[in-house]
Amino acid sequence: MGLFTKDIKTMNDLFVHQLQDIYYAEQQLTKALPKMASKATDPQLKQGFLTHLEETKQHVKRLEEVFKMHGVAVKAVDCPAIDGIIEEADETAGEVADKAVLDAALINAAQAAEHYEIVRYGSLIAWAKQLGRTDCASVLAKTLEEEKATDKKLTALAESKVNLRAAS
Amino acid sequence: MGLFTKDIKTMNDLFVHQLQDIYYAEQQLTKALPKMASKATDPQLKQGFLTHLEETKQHVKRLEEVFKMHGVAVKAVDCPAIDGIIEEADETAGEVADKAVLDAALINAAQAAEHYEIVRYGSLIAWAKQLGRTDCASVLAKTLEEEKATDKKLTALAESKVNLRAAS
Repeated sequence: MGLFTKDIKTMNDLFVHQLQDIYYAEQQLTKALPKMASKATDPQLKQGFLTHLEETKQHVKRLEEVFKMHGVAVKAVDCPAIDGIIEEADETAGEVADKAVLDAALINAAQAAEHYEIVRYGSLIAWAKQLGRTDCASVLAKTLEEEKATDKKLTALAESKVNLRAAS
Repeated sequence: MGLFTKDIKTMNDLFVHQLQDIYYAEQQLTKALPKMASKATDPQLKQGFLTHLEETKQHVKRLEEVFKMHGVAVKAVDCPAIDGIIEEADETAGEVADKAVLDAALINAAQAAEHYEIVRYGSLIAWAKQLGRTDCASVLAKTLEEEKATDKKLTALAESKVNLRAAS
């Protein structure tokens, strides 16, 4: 959609626009996660990024399923928010000299992406229900649960090991 | 800090860098919130943005207090993530023709900013504790609680009223 073209006239339009936005975001994350895995030193963190990469590929497919269920074309629109989150992750990672500190920075970066997705899927699910599309809401809810679980795993890994090592 | 200059050598450096990043983000939000308030139609949402603007100004002051407590200069660094989140909020808002739908979009946009801050303050508090700066952690925790409370209020407002009106 173009800038300031006032293309969003209904909640359904907003729902479809947000689907297109998160579809772009998930695709960008399938490119960012392998890079984050390659930068991580802690084996559990490295594996965590790779596991979430597989989940993210599944999230892309689920979004394609929701587009089809809702009878609209599969399409992505630019998402400056996820671009900014990934750019900041790259910049900060590029500035960290110590490997243990880098792991702590990578977790922080990944959690920014997770929380961005948690907000967007939360809104999408609420809007789908309001539009009577509980079928779409159910599919989106599976992804939301995986994003929340990943965020919790990252917090646990930071608190149990990574922050301790980074500060030593 | 410059790109790829490897200026972050310790967890303390990462903590200070993140303080500078969120200091920039909070400042940008003090500029974005009045605009969001002016775009909102629902009086409760409009007032909510204005109340959070006052809290955000306080968050800026608290960060200045933490910089001083920690003995480092008050400084901001660019934060592409919050720039992207605000840019996306502006773009989406500019595309919405219907006032009730715009309120739903504004809540979604504001929650992306809140969650970005929730992640960053969460990491800052964990790192401060790891560095033995429980005094800094206590100050930062006050802000984190306010960000979480704002996020919950926005969800409640969306679910109780705004989404219903947007879909009607």
